[in-house]
Amino acid sequence: MVDWFHWLNLAGVAVCAISGTLMAYQKRMDGFGVIVLASATAIGGGTLRDMMLDVPVFWIADNDYLYTTLIAAFIPIIWLRLSPRFPYHYLLIADAFGLALFNVVGIEKALANDTGIAVAIAMGTITGVFGGLLRDVICREVPLVLGGELYATTCIVGGMAYGLAMYLGFEAQWCGAVALATTVLMRLGALRWHWEMPVFYNEN
Amino acid sequence: MVDWFHWLNLAGVAVCAISGTLMAYQKRMDGFGVIVLASATAIGGGTLRDMMLDVPVFWIADNDYLYTTLIAAFIPIIWLRLSPRFPYHYLLIADAFGLALFNVVGIEKALANDTGIAVAIAMGTITGVFGGLLRDVICREVPLVLGGELYATTCIVGGMAYGLAMYLGFEAQWCGAVALATTVLMRLGALRWHWEMPVFYNEN
Amino acid sequence: MVDWFHWLNLAGVAVCAISGTLMAYQKRMDGFGVIVLASATAIGGGTLRDMMLDVPVFWIADNDYLYTTLIAAFIPIIWLRLSPRFPYHYLLIADAFGLALFNVVGIEKALANDTGIAVAIAMGTITGVFGGLLRDVICREVPLVLGGELYATTCIVGGMAYGLAMYLGFEAQWCGAVALATTVLMRLGALRWHWEMPVFYNEN
Repeated sequence: MVDWFHWLNLAGVAVCAISGTLMAYQKRMDGFGVIVLASATAIGGGTLRDMMLDVPVFWIADNDYLYTTLIAAFIPIIWLRLSPRFPYHYLLIADAFGLALFNVVGIEKALANDTGIAVAIAMGTITGVFGGLLRDVICREVPLVLGGELYATTCIVGGMAYGLAMYLGFEAQWCGAVALATTVLMRLGALRWHWEMPVFYNEN
Repeated sequence: MVDWFHWLNLAGVAVCAISGTLMAYQKRMDGFGVIVLASATAIGGGTLRDMMLDVPVFWIADNDYLYTTLIAAFIPIIWLRLSPRFPYHYLLIADAFGLALFNVVGIEKALANDTGIAVAIAMGTITGVFGGLLRDVICREVPLVLGGELYATTCIVGGMAYGLAMYLGFEAQWCGAVALATTVLMRLGALRWHWEMPVFYNEN
Repeated sequence: MVDWFHWLNLAGVAVCAISGTLMAYQKRMDGFGVIVLASATAIGGGTLRDMMLDVPVFWIADNDYLYTTLIAAFIPIIWLRLSPRFPYHYLLIADAFGLALFNVVGIEKALANDTGIAVAIAMGTITGVFGGLLRDVICREVPLVLGGELYATTCIVGGMAYGLAMYLGFEAQWCGAVALATTVLMRLGALRWHWEMPVFYNEN
């Protein structure tokens, strides 16, 4: 993978770690709780993906991810000591980019291991959303990815865009760019206009 | 594995996916929540088993399982649009067969990887019940497998029957048939006559 | 690994299995729930570690661990039938030794697989605390490791002591002894004097 890809990936990890720390704050966890939640959120999705694909787990092979998670986990703590307000709005926008990037990383890692496109789309979505699901299960919250504004769905649609671009004969880096743009724009649109999936329920 | 085994396995996956969808209904989850819960329930047990045995994860190697899960997840949604009643009773019977089949698949996959019979029984039980445990943890329900009518216990007893048949020198397909029959009959009996394990509690 | 190491490891597994059983008691789970909780607590951490390191899962390769878990799970049940009081105090001391031992096992297994020291510290901590985290998530408790007296933090400090001893050129067995002593003494001190990590919270 090219160098900018590595840096964007680290940025995605950092954003997710910050979101884990903010949840730990709200739950009044102690210092270790912050590290656990930040790590689970930031590297949980990629860890499950790598274990399922049976490839070396990314943060074991490259220490940068672990250090990035630890440093990012303490950003909100220091920030909130200095200022009463945290820029949640910018965090959501950064998170949309992180989600899209994790999605593309997951798709490309799966395809590089000779899976079909359906499995690759599943792997992209798992990379993007499993960390947040883990964070919510540990904190005993209703997992956010299972309801509310479009989140995981943007990964699936982004993955389908990747598959379509592949089918149309685009080169790999353009397939990735199409998937990235689709996921980011759809997620930002969902945040701006409150797009939701229909909620099913049992009338009985 | 022979062809009918593959088809029965797909049927087991479909039944579990349907049970995940029905839980998502009751929790009023959105469309993506349905897919997550259906997938976790249907392929969660086998995924954990394959990761622990360090063999290729079954649904990554064979796309049929993923497509079956997705199709099965939408059966109850369409059904409940057309008719107010869902045949839960038949679902429980189908689920008993799915449980027994997952159990035998887990045992045979473990033995094929040179584990002892104790580990194989554990793998069969994990294949059978972990998906449902995952479904309940995600939904913040008290996991059904940890209480109530005999469920996981039928897998353990079925696994012991497998071990006994092996010890008596039966051929592999007959060991599997014995374990399948033991698990199904015990589970159906538990459903019919409300067999339960004793509940332990702390009187202090 | 030398023989006493194997026996101490089995003792750590037994202590964790007992703590899982006691939780199952309080939750009034049935017989199978006891086995699940005891197993998840005793071998959950090492299982995740081995899957992430992509080495054979320890209890699959060596049946002793599974049998130890099952036997240990029934000790509190028999004990509580004979006597109304369970020696929780001694259990906490035994648990401190189990935690420290799991920590050292995790660190050494990671280093033997050529990870850096930061990843090794993470693996030691995961081996020590993931089982208890799993137990609490299944039981829908607020995970104990995320708050209260120092627990996981003792693993991290023990791991840092290991790294320092390595840096100073100690032989492997002395590094392990330093980490073991650091973790045990810090945990016993936390139990005795109620040491806690500062709890962060969001004043907004």
